[in-house]
Order: sequence, then C-alpha cells, then structure tokens
Amino acid sequence: MSKKFFAELIGTFMLVFIGTGAVVFGNGLEGIGHLGIALAFGLSIVAAAYSIGTISGAHLNPAVSLAMFVNKRMNAQEFITYVIAQVIGAFLASTTLNFFLTSSGQTVTSLGENGFSNVSAMGAFLFEVIATFIFVLVIVTVTSASKGNGKIAGLVIGLSLTTLILLGLNVTGLSVNPARSLAPALLLGGTALSQVWVFILAPLVGGFLAALVGQNLLETEQ
Amino acid sequence: MSKKFFAELIGTFMLVFIGTGAVVFGNGLEGIGHLGIALAFGLSIVAAAYSIGTISGAHLNPAVSLAMFVNKRMNAQEFITYVIAQVIGAFLASTTLNFFLTSSGQTVTSLGENGFSNVSAMGAFLFEVIATFIFVLVIVTVTSASKGNGKIAGLVIGLSLTTLILLGLNVTGLSVNPARSLAPALLLGGTALSQVWVFILAPLVGGFLAALVGQNLLETEQ
Amino acid sequence: MSKKFFAELIGTFMLVFIGTGAVVFGNGLEGIGHLGIALAFGLSIVAAAYSIGTISGAHLNPAVSLAMFVNKRMNAQEFITYVIAQVIGAFLASTTLNFFLTSSGQTVTSLGENGFSNVSAMGAFLFEVIATFIFVLVIVTVTSASKGNGKIAGLVIGLSLTTLILLGLNVTGLSVNPARSLAPALLLGGTALSQVWVFILAPLVGGFLAALVGQNLLETEQ
Amino acid sequence: MSKKFFAELIGTFMLVFIGTGAVVFGNGLEGIGHLGIALAFGLSIVAAAYSIGTISGAHLNPAVSLAMFVNKRMNAQEFITYVIAQVIGAFLASTTLNFFLTSSGQTVTSLGENGFSNVSAMGAFLFEVIATFIFVLVIVTVTSASKGNGKIAGLVIGLSLTTLILLGLNVTGLSVNPARSLAPALLLGGTALSQVWVFILAPLVGGFLAALVGQNLLETEQ
Repeated sequence: MSKKFFAELIGTFMLVFIGTGAVVFGNGLEGIGHLGIALAFGLSIVAAAYSIGTISGAHLNPAVSLAMFVNKRMNAQEFITYVIAQVIGAFLASTTLNFFLTSSGQTVTSLGENGFSNVSAMGAFLFEVIATFIFVLVIVTVTSASKGNGKIAGLVIGLSLTTLILLGLNVTGLSVNPARSLAPALLLGGTALSQVWVFILAPLVGGFLAALVGQNLLETEQ
Repeated sequence: MSKKFFAELIGTFMLVFIGTGAVVFGNGLEGIGHLGIALAFGLSIVAAAYSIGTISGAHLNPAVSLAMFVNKRMNAQEFITYVIAQVIGAFLASTTLNFFLTSSGQTVTSLGENGFSNVSAMGAFLFEVIATFIFVLVIVTVTSASKGNGKIAGLVIGLSLTTLILLGLNVTGLSVNPARSLAPALLLGGTALSQVWVFILAPLVGGFLAALVGQNLLETEQ
Repeated sequence: MSKKFFAELIGTFMLVFIGTGAVVFGNGLEGIGHLGIALAFGLSIVAAAYSIGTISGAHLNPAVSLAMFVNKRMNAQEFITYVIAQVIGAFLASTTLNFFLTSSGQTVTSLGENGFSNVSAMGAFLFEVIATFIFVLVIVTVTSASKGNGKIAGLVIGLSLTTLILLGLNVTGLSVNPARSLAPALLLGGTALSQVWVFILAPLVGGFLAALVGQNLLETEQ
Repeated sequence: MSKKFFAELIGTFMLVFIGTGAVVFGNGLEGIGHLGIALAFGLSIVAAAYSIGTISGAHLNPAVSLAMFVNKRMNAQEFITYVIAQVIGAFLASTTLNFFLTSSGQTVTSLGENGFSNVSAMGAFLFEVIATFIFVLVIVTVTSASKGNGKIAGLVIGLSLTTLILLGLNVTGLSVNPARSLAPALLLGGTALSQVWVFILAPLVGGFLAALVGQNLLETEQ
C-alpha cells in the first residue's frame, strides 16, 4: 500500500505541476494559449498513467477514487489513502511552482487556480458536475475489467480531459478534480479559497453519478 | 435496446455539449481558436467512443447510423431508435448550453450552429457530401469486423473529424452530422434554421455513398 | 488491382483535398494557423490509412511507392499503377478546391502549392531530401513485416508528417510528395510550376535513400 | 553494435533537426507558436521511435541512456557508444540548420538553444532535474519488460516531452537532454555555451533519480 501511496503522490504532483505550471509559465502573447493549457493537462495524465499508473492506477483525483470506491474497486482504507496522497502531491506541486515564481522575484498572483466570474456559483457547480460526470464515465469504462481498453486507457483519459478543458477554461477554469483545485486555493487564499468548495463538492457529485451510470447503464463492473 | 438508446443519447450529448460549447465559450482573443474547436469536437468523440461506445457503438450521428443500416449492421428499428436518441441528446446539449449562457446574463447569438455565407447552398451541400463521405468511409472501415481496428477506432474517428473541421470550419462550420446541426438551429431559428436542410440532407447522402463504397470497394462487410 | 487503384486515388484525394484545402480555407486571422495546417495534413493520412489503406496500403505519395518498389514490396506494374492513381487523385482534389473557390467568386491565388523564396533551389532540394528521407524511413519501418507496428502505423505516419510540416512550412511549404505538389502547380502555373521539379525530384531521392537505409541499417525487409 | 550507433545517431539528428529547426524556422507572427514547438519536439520522438528505435531503442538522450545503464539494461561500453552517437547526431543537426540559415543569407542568432534569464542558475537546475525526472520515469516504465507498453511507448514518450515543453519553454527552453543542448551551444557560443553546464548536469541527475525510483518504487526491472 505504501508504494501506491507514493506513486499516487508523485502522479498527482505531475498533473498539478505540469498543468497549473503551464498556466502560470505559459501565459502571455508568446505563450501557449488555451489549447496549450488544455494539452498540457491532458498529456500530463498520459505521463502519469504510463509511469506511476502501473502501480497505483493513476487516479490523481479524489473524484476518480470516489467512483472506484463506489464501484467496489477499492475499499474505504485505500480510498482514504489515495485521497491523502493526491492532496499532498497537489500541494507539493503548487508549493514548488510558488517557489519558482518567488525565487525569480515575481509577485505571485496566480497558481492556475479555478474560479468563476461569468457564471453564478450554482452555474459553476452544475457545469463542474456535468464535466466530471463525462470525465469519470470515460475513466470507469476504459479501465473496466470487462469493458476496458487498458493499453490505451491513459491516452483516452488524457485526451478526454483536454477536450473538457477546451470547453470549460473560460467558464470555471475546468477543475473536475478537488485535489487540483484545493492546492492553489490554499496557497493563494482570497477568491480562489472562497470559491474552492464548488470545485471540491461538484466533482465528487459528478464522479458519484458517473460510477452509478457506469455500473448500471454501461455494465462496467460485470 | 433501451440501454443503447440512453447510451447513444448521452454520447451525442457529449459530442454536442463539448463541441458546440467549445465554439460558444472558447471564442475571443483569449480563446481556443479554430484548432481548439477542431480538437474539442474530435476528442469529444474519443470520450464518447470509449465510454458509452461500449454499449451503443457511439454513432452519435444519423449519417453514421444510416451507413450502418445500409450495410446491414443494424435493422430499421434500431436505426430509428438511434436517430431519435441522437436528436434528443443533441437537443439537450444545446438547451443546456443555452441555459448556461442565459443564466449568466449573456445574449445568445450563437450556439455553435452550422451555416454558409461564402459559398452557395449547392456549394455547401457538395462540400458536406464530400466531407461526410470521407468521415463515414473511415468509420465503416475502422469498425468493420474484417477490416477494422477496434481498439483504436475511437481515436481514429475522432482525429478524422478534427482534420475535416480544420478543412471546413470557414466553409460551412463543418457539420457532417444532422443531429449536431439540427439542435442549435431549432433553438436559434433565423438563418441557422433556414439553412439546416443542407446539414441534414448532405450528410445523409455522403454517409449513404460511403456505405456503398465501403461495402464494394473496401470490402468492409465481408 | 483495380480496387487498389481506386482506393489509392481516393486516399490521395483525401490527403490533398484536406491538407491543401486547410491551407486555402484556413488562412487569415480567424484561421487555423501553421499548427492547424500541420495537423490537417497529418491527420488526413490517419483518415486515409484506416479507410482505403486497408486495400491499397495508403501510400498516397510516389516517393513512398518508390521506396516500396525499391524494397521489392511491389513490382514495377504496381508501382506505375499507384503513381498514376496518386497523381489523378491529387489533381481531382486541387480541381475540386479550385471549383469551390471560383464558384464562390474568389480569385484563386493559392491552392496550397509548395515553393521557396528564402532558400535557394539547391537549399530547398536538400531540405526536401532530408525531410522525405525521415518521413519514408518511418514508413518503411512501421509497415515492415518484421519491424512494423501495423495497428498504429497510420497514426505514427500521420504524426510524423505533422512534425515535418511544423519544421518546414516556412522553408518550402514541406512537400515530401511529388503528387501533392504537382497538382496545384499544374492548375496555378507561374512560380509554383517553375519550381515544382524540386518537389518531384527531391522526394524521390529522399525516398530512395530511406528505402536503402531501411533495408540495410534497420533490417526492414528481413 | 555499429548498427545501433548509426541508428542512434540518425535518431538524435531527427530530434534535434526537427525540434530546434521548428524553433528556428517556425518563429514569427505567421509561425507555429509555442504549442507548435512543443509538438514538433514530441512528435519527432514518435518518428525516431518507430523507425531507428527498432534497432537502438531510440534513447536520443544521454540522460535516458544513463538511466538504462543504471538499471542494467545496457553495459558501460554500450552507454558510451550511445552517448557519442547522440552527441554527434545532435551536432550534425545543428550544423545542418546553421548551413540552411547561412546559405540563405540570414544572420544566425538562434539555433534553438536552451537558456534561462527569468530564473537563477540554481532555479533552472532544479527545474530541469524535476522535468527530466518525470520524463525519464515515463521512459523507464513504458519500456520496462514487466511494466511496459511497447507498442505505444513511442507515442507516450513523445507526448510526455510535449507536455513538459508546454510547461517549461518560458523557463529554460526545456532541455531534459544534454546532447540536444550541447550542439547549439557549441555552435553559438556566448550565453548558450556559458549556461550549457546546467543542461548537461541537471538532466543527468534527473535521469539518475528516475532510474532509482523506477527500479524501487515502480518495479520496472523485475
């Protein structure tokens, strides 16, 4: 179990360091743009899936682990272990980014946090529920023992995150992942912290629904 | 059959919600650009194919289902069931996008509809026939029992849609899919609705031709 | 053989219609950019490989067919048949693009032709030899009976073309394909036609060298 | 062994010619942008992996070969042979790019070199250690006899480099590869040469750490 803990921690570090780091470092006229951010997040999952994923499965996300727990692919203790590893890995990633920014003399105004300004909290909540539902539905199916497609699962999951970010970057910054949202919010405080409950609760609701639909409609656990 | 109905409905919702949503939310100087839109549509097919596709095959498109019907991979009743599911799924997607826009106080001027202004109706028709022919030819081959490549079919189909959108976004908005075009046209009315016949008929013609060429030239049904 | 002829013709039509069409229609501030063009060409190969490629192998390119002929994977008659199909398919694609442009009242100044203005003819020649060498080396290996990777060959070949276009779009427009260059040059005349010899000869030289290196260094024919 | 030498030399030529060439030729308002550069580097690995990789394994990078040596997948003599081939291949690539630029009358101010101006040398060092650690961890796992995923390893490795470049292009130009950094630095001199020690040492440290973590945490050598 401790190997899975460290694997999951490293994997979530990869996701948050690369993804939110691309937001922080990639901005500006000479930057990578929204498409670059969407690909950075998605392909960081590819990197994590085909490295630490061989040990832990590369959930990288409490909403994913919740779905695996609901569908009895992991027990309560494993679920809690995974979530702790994910939260610590994400926090280390945001802290490392913060260090690079401050040590180069920059004022840290963003760490790739999620937030909403054009939609209401309820709109943001609903949007994240739908996006996480889609994301986790892909994950529970493509990693299913009966329905899955193991060899390319990491690619499929990464590209699914990319397309959801293309959809939602202007709406909520697209979280679908409580650990990914919590880490920058804790370090930044302010609006990011006051809105972070949306990005913790909504992905869990979406992941829970996806687990049920996967189990009952897509027969993922048979 | 009812599982296939709901799977196909959810899958078409994914395609239209992500694809046309990326058009609506992703625009502007800070947006994802034409390449981002092309990837959002293409990769939404990846997400649908590897989730609900395990139940319904993820046609997501009446032109695709028509080709499957012509090549006797589904019967008339299944064909009709699929088309109804696709139309409902697409309509729910456009309605949901419309809700997010109106509830955030925006005037809805676009829902990612298809249309043509630089070419004539006949030019747009011909363009969509050719594009759909290519798209469906890929689909009938890569999902063929004898010629297919099942494990990566979803990736291939998604990336084929992406390249066709790169080609045609400035010409017709690239539909190749009656359900995807009908939903925003019904909600928007106006030009989108008056031109939507092109995006219903032309893809069906293209899909029909692709089914025949697949069967007779590419031996997809042997 | 006649099925291979028509398959190869349709496949080369796909490549040139989508690739050069993306150049023609995708330009402008609202367009797809150089990256979009590079992906349109590369992913059009994916579409062709997994459809008509199941019949003809989807060479789509006389330089590729030459390498296959040199390495005895096809005989002289097949080689000639393929080249004729490729040239006709490409010509039909450029003609169709030309029709869409003229019928919408546009003055046709570009059909996605290749050319060089920043480098000398000899520089362009050398550049195309190197680029085609790399491209065809990938193809002869990934489709090799002993060294190949058949299921994902189409993806690998398409993405290899994409990366070469990212490299060379500002140098020569990146041809690596005599059929792809000849068609727009014939329709446009002028500079495109006077420079087209470079894009016919250099890819053939590069493809020939790749066949030899594949055979002798990479053991592709063993 | 000599076949591996030449294969590795050609492969590293591909990586550096395409990757740094895309930086040099792709710049400007009409260029490929940061995302284009990130994809050019990543997809050049795809091209190399599925061609010369069938002979040499396509390390293309002394940091990768060091990890393979540390994990006993190659002996000391092979390690040295590979590094020499990589350095020569990279040097030939930069020299060829330099030739194209000078022969077209351009003043050569960049050959796609790595460097840092916004962060300190120690910051750049740490950044490259982390990035190389992630990159090589993916490589040692996805090519592992027990944990690997051989058929798509080249795609996974290439896309992992792409996402790391999206993260680090504005920080250090993202090297993770001593051979890739040394070649342009030797030709350019100046700042590139005075900073190149960072891009030689840091990737070796990162690769060494990844080999250990792969072996002990991810069980890549069992």
